[in-house]
Amino acid sequence: MKEIRVGIIGFGTVGSGLAEVLLEQQQRLEKRSGISVRLSKVADIHISELPPQFAGVTLTKDAAELINDPDIDIVVELIGGIEPAKTFVMDAIASGKHVVTANKALLSQEGQDIFSAASKKGVEVGFEASVGGGIPVIKSLKEGLVANKILAIMGIMNGTANYILTRMTDEGIPFAEVLKDAQEQGFAEADPTYDIEGIDTAHKLAILMTMAYGMNITHNDIATEGISQIKPVDIEFAREFGCRIKLLAISHNHGDHVEARVHPTMVPDSHLLAKIDGAFNAIHFTGDMVGNVLLYGLGAGKMATGSAVAADILDIARDIRSGSVGRVPSLSYLPEYIGERKITPMSELACAYYFRITANDEPGVLSTIAGILSRNGISIESVIQKGRKELGPVSVVMRTHTATESSVSAALSEIDALDVVAAPTIKIRMLEIE
Amino acid sequence: MKEIRVGIIGFGTVGSGLAEVLLEQQQRLEKRSGISVRLSKVADIHISELPPQFAGVTLTKDAAELINDPDIDIVVELIGGIEPAKTFVMDAIASGKHVVTANKALLSQEGQDIFSAASKKGVEVGFEASVGGGIPVIKSLKEGLVANKILAIMGIMNGTANYILTRMTDEGIPFAEVLKDAQEQGFAEADPTYDIEGIDTAHKLAILMTMAYGMNITHNDIATEGISQIKPVDIEFAREFGCRIKLLAISHNHGDHVEARVHPTMVPDSHLLAKIDGAFNAIHFTGDMVGNVLLYGLGAGKMATGSAVAADILDIARDIRSGSVGRVPSLSYLPEYIGERKITPMSELACAYYFRITANDEPGVLSTIAGILSRNGISIESVIQKGRKELGPVSVVMRTHTATESSVSAALSEIDALDVVAAPTIKIRMLEIE
Repeated sequence: MKEIRVGIIGFGTVGSGLAEVLLEQQQRLEKRSGISVRLSKVADIHISELPPQFAGVTLTKDAAELINDPDIDIVVELIGGIEPAKTFVMDAIASGKHVVTANKALLSQEGQDIFSAASKKGVEVGFEASVGGGIPVIKSLKEGLVANKILAIMGIMNGTANYILTRMTDEGIPFAEVLKDAQEQGFAEADPTYDIEGIDTAHKLAILMTMAYGMNITHNDIATEGISQIKPVDIEFAREFGCRIKLLAISHNHGDHVEARVHPTMVPDSHLLAKIDGAFNAIHFTGDMVGNVLLYGLGAGKMATGSAVAADILDIARDIRSGSVGRVPSLSYLPEYIGERKITPMSELACAYYFRITANDEPGVLSTIAGILSRNGISIESVIQKGRKELGPVSVVMRTHTATESSVSAALSEIDALDVVAAPTIKIRMLEIE
Repeated sequence: MKEIRVGIIGFGTVGSGLAEVLLEQQQRLEKRSGISVRLSKVADIHISELPPQFAGVTLTKDAAELINDPDIDIVVELIGGIEPAKTFVMDAIASGKHVVTANKALLSQEGQDIFSAASKKGVEVGFEASVGGGIPVIKSLKEGLVANKILAIMGIMNGTANYILTRMTDEGIPFAEVLKDAQEQGFAEADPTYDIEGIDTAHKLAILMTMAYGMNITHNDIATEGISQIKPVDIEFAREFGCRIKLLAISHNHGDHVEARVHPTMVPDSHLLAKIDGAFNAIHFTGDMVGNVLLYGLGAGKMATGSAVAADILDIARDIRSGSVGRVPSLSYLPEYIGERKITPMSELACAYYFRITANDEPGVLSTIAGILSRNGISIESVIQKGRKELGPVSVVMRTHTATESSVSAALSEIDALDVVAAPTIKIRMLEIE
């Protein structure tokens, strides 16, 4: 039986999860492929021995020793971050190894270098685990939906942010309190910035857009807002409008230009994305042939991520065995067809908006605000005014009809400059359902 | 550029849809694979000419002419049914062609012959379109989730049945009326038996179970009940219990034996499957590594099905080009690892039940019924009694705690034999959520 040898750099949560998956599923992988996938070496600077079940596996503190090991076929990078991960990946490619990684930050920022080097060297780069954890998102986009022009991508791609929003929604407790609790329980990182500020979601959207549209894009090209400014009162108002607030990645393919944005979004209850709760992810594609497809599952976690990395390993192993390396281009399109595309400036976005304006409860306030909106070409769909029983400022909440981002920005600058307005206005975009 | 030539047998809805997909997406497929996929011949006994956009394509009434054409690489069977479809597929395999089919009835009933012949001849059989229309279900199960023991399969796999149940739920109108309307609008076939009696769903479950568990099974091994006996009143009671009624395929992998059943099911509103409406399908897998994954999309339709068939064609084309035919076994496991597994007899099933008993409104009825249930070891979770304002029989509706199918059958035989019981009791199984 053909044997494929794997080296793992980084034996943290995902690395040790992958090692367990490869051990537990070894027979299953053999019965499905006729290939024996063997974990041969682990590189990690933080540990001095491997758990006893990995008795035959060599441990080293030196990643180079693994990368240059002539017996290793596939190098799995699971340390995260940009450096030294990029160096390890580039060195592995240079020494003719296939690479599997779950590192969305690295791929989003340095993908062009990595995929170009791999293509020149004739090795494969697998990255199923970089988006949607164990959900087969990348394979579905590259192969299952290959006969589609992808018209839109929408998704909940960060389990931590979705977990926080779900608990805020179900329990009515403030953001900071849920975050602290999630950190104590290990559901959120000590530094949660990437998760809660939408940056991790933007990394993932950049990866999907590259493959869906055949374009170069990094997360820096994506307008990104996080969830830290969302208050329980916004969630309450969302409920009154028949919506849930979700941190969504949204991209529309307009042919000559493409939309790309990550922000909290009011999702109507009737949409499946409104029902995705807790640490789950869901990615929604619209294809010109297939229509709407949604893929749902755990977006993170030791074994779920291990499942995706193991699928990539077996995919590459099948290509090595069959002599068909490069059978499917890493980024779905052949490199010569991946080009530049214009990204729609955020100011040109048009959608419906939710505003929560904090104003002193004086006569004429609503009329002043309505006047400003009207002068900026923004028409109001409905208004809720609450908090009259309390002293101090009240919340004036509005839903608009479709308006452009530029007119909304202009109007909110004027509104927030009013003497009667006591705090910056909160604006949440609404999901438009075709 | 490598050219792969395709022949289509059957130019009905799906066949003409596939032809359009191949035409519209030809450039996209080339940019993604470096392969030119060309539709070269169509066999159909019902048409005398092809639409004008297929000017370069030959039309024949004789499938054998297509099957024996030495220029054709892949034969696509889209006529449906068992014969002559099986003969065409077996002949195509015998003449060394790869085969793609959307024919779930054929694969469920004759799959062993077909896959065994293909394996011996060294050709591939693609069948992504046989389950879940355009959703990449088969590829996800065979490749994306390859490193998982599949513990459970659940799903809404028939768009017609789900469309009927959704309209019954939303509009409160009876089964027969919705069916008639659906037939008039072309959403349901003139003979809807396979769709509404769960047979089509059983075909699909058999295909998924074969691949998920590595076992031989046909739809005849699957306990199957349809939706024709469901009344709007059952949907109303389901709502009171916080449930929706869905036609589900359900299978659990218990290791030495497997459950396999298709029946109307009370699905709690909190479960994603309760939210799948209209003609959409959703297939839910539980893997030992990945946890729960759900795949959602249109389960039928000209272009969605065409999208799945085209993905299979490109997959085979890539293998032909790379010399890697047979790279992934057709049924996910290598043929020697597909064996016999015991299917749990339905009598051993244990779940919670909904009963709607139609009884004359006489004193002591409830006590008599409760006594029968109790003697059969069935404990009642809640009772609703309605219809007292009307003359004639009333509905006594119950939810039970977990009970076995055999004790339920025994109890309902006794209950239905009572003089006060005016109609056969309706029983609907409830989805257990772990």
